[in-house]
Amino acid sequence: MRRLIPLAAALALTAGATSAQEAEVAPGYTDAALRQAAQDSFDVILPPAPAADGIEAARRELGAMLFFDPRMSSSGLFSCQTCHNVGMGGVDALPTSIGHGWQKGPRNAPTVYNALFNAAQFWDGRAADLAEQAMGPVQAAVEMNNTPEQVVATLNSMDAYREAFVASFPDEAEPVSFANFATAIAEFEETLVTPGADFDRWLAGDADAMTHEQKRGLALFMDSGCSACHSGVNFGGQDYHPFGVVERPGADVLPEGDRGRFAVTATAGDDYVFRAAPLRNVALTPPYFHSGAVWSLEEAVHIMGTSQLGADLGEPEIAAITAFLHSLTGEAPKVEHPVLPPRTAETPQPTPF
Amino acid sequence: MRRLIPLAAALALTAGATSAQEAEVAPGYTDAALRQAAQDSFDVILPPAPAADGIEAARRELGAMLFFDPRMSSSGLFSCQTCHNVGMGGVDALPTSIGHGWQKGPRNAPTVYNALFNAAQFWDGRAADLAEQAMGPVQAAVEMNNTPEQVVATLNSMDAYREAFVASFPDEAEPVSFANFATAIAEFEETLVTPGADFDRWLAGDADAMTHEQKRGLALFMDSGCSACHSGVNFGGQDYHPFGVVERPGADVLPEGDRGRFAVTATAGDDYVFRAAPLRNVALTPPYFHSGAVWSLEEAVHIMGTSQLGADLGEPEIAAITAFLHSLTGEAPKVEHPVLPPRTAETPQPTPF
Repeated sequence: MRRLIPLAAALALTAGATSAQEAEVAPGYTDAALRQAAQDSFDVILPPAPAADGIEAARRELGAMLFFDPRMSSSGLFSCQTCHNVGMGGVDALPTSIGHGWQKGPRNAPTVYNALFNAAQFWDGRAADLAEQAMGPVQAAVEMNNTPEQVVATLNSMDAYREAFVASFPDEAEPVSFANFATAIAEFEETLVTPGADFDRWLAGDADAMTHEQKRGLALFMDSGCSACHSGVNFGGQDYHPFGVVERPGADVLPEGDRGRFAVTATAGDDYVFRAAPLRNVALTPPYFHSGAVWSLEEAVHIMGTSQLGADLGEPEIAAITAFLHSLTGEAPKVEHPVLPPRTAETPQPTPF
Repeated sequence: MRRLIPLAAALALTAGATSAQEAEVAPGYTDAALRQAAQDSFDVILPPAPAADGIEAARRELGAMLFFDPRMSSSGLFSCQTCHNVGMGGVDALPTSIGHGWQKGPRNAPTVYNALFNAAQFWDGRAADLAEQAMGPVQAAVEMNNTPEQVVATLNSMDAYREAFVASFPDEAEPVSFANFATAIAEFEETLVTPGADFDRWLAGDADAMTHEQKRGLALFMDSGCSACHSGVNFGGQDYHPFGVVERPGADVLPEGDRGRFAVTATAGDDYVFRAAPLRNVALTPPYFHSGAVWSLEEAVHIMGTSQLGADLGEPEIAAITAFLHSLTGEAPKVEHPVLPPRTAETPQPTPF
């Protein structure tokens, strides 16, 4: 286990601090030193900016309609919201999702909350951004099982959708397109951020926003090496690492058939490589890992310790890190359920059975 | 086809009306006479009253959480919202719903909009009220496939739910119960009403709120006998009638295996008897009938004419009645998607597969 004493902490110790402000909150850290170290690795989430103009406002509104509309699936049952529930941590809380025909999805559905902060989308990073991601599940036979042609036909059949696309993409000759469908969903999803986490308030200077245990957990999180992969505004989501840097977990947690990013790059070095999971709101999103095999956050922390760091974390350390991870739960976005346009005689009928 | 000239209309004609106010808007009716006849049969929908007190407010808020929570189903996929989508006319827009294990439901899901105005719930009226209805789908093996015990265990596992039940049922020793789960959902559903329909504005005196074709359709609707069953604030939902009073539709529309209210009463007279469907927002809720077999509102009007009235309505009459039915589309309720409590280690795991 690496153990680095940040310079600020070292200086604080050297100065022989005695006031409450300068008391140790975690081994080797005053509150100020811990904050300074954390500021080097992490950023706060700011509330979503208001729409810059009428076009952005129109796209967000359209995107919300599309995100919630089950008629975007061939069966009429599934929408984006089904697996990325805006009221439930941005996930479906299943090991892997239920899809068309009651099929079992291959990987745990990642949260839509703060997804815009990820460097790429999906567990293997195969989509460059939210818009590219949005095109995936709607076409996947195991998920929404639809086609771009059918989606566009569905959208074109309803006046309110056509008008919303015109307002959202006013300079385009054919505003109703599958690409614009994805763009609008992405612009809505960019509003699904969770500011106001206890950690963020603490990082911004409110010393009381985190408990002592959470601060000890944060110090451990940084000094044990977790933050080597889980850093930045999203505490992850930025780069790729083998699951099992030190020790490969069992097939229950790391199914042998899913080799991760290898399927994207066909490079031997990418075997069992996944994007480091973003840890914002992680307390809201069990079960964990791409396999969704682990329901307990404590157990997930323990597995990460052994597999990625070669550290057999003890119970108090796991408890502290878990407490810290709870400080990453932000304020859920407020989302009014959109009113969806009524179908017409031209709207393709669902084919559920 | 019955043809009744209301007294007010007859008087208006006798008086030799000539002004625009007194011109005929439909055969035999001035606008005022049509309104007076309509007021005898129908009522406007008023916006939902604000919560009377903190308890009612708490129950509505809790009910919204429960209505939207897919963890109320054994698989974790289905919530009340799945089949009664508050943004999509209060229905799932499927012939019959998709349920647990991709099973096909037996009947078309009725709208939750304005359901409180129905005399009883379900197509066969087997539930006396919304709370009794809410207990059904959650337990049905073909729908949410859960048990009251598992629902209560799920609710008890999460602090935010326990606290919401205490706030909603403060005088009870065991506030977290399946009965209170249903009561809270019902109190939320009572807010899902749709005031402001063109018809309602017209009925309240705005002569321009309906087109001439819609007024002709309304006159036909009353004079042909439709309003004998489809009357009151909800244009139906009040009593039971055989599907096929005059002529039984084919098995595609009236499947022989579903004998309707007979299953509830075991009375021969209740064979193929169903509750008259409420027609508020009917333009938003295809496909039609308990079988969900008919996608076109025009076709549904035609079938009703032949099966219930013995009237082979012509194309202009069907068009006018359909235009009138569109005037029953009200303002969709504004619903903020609730933030659902995070699961805990005690929360039962979903059993999707």
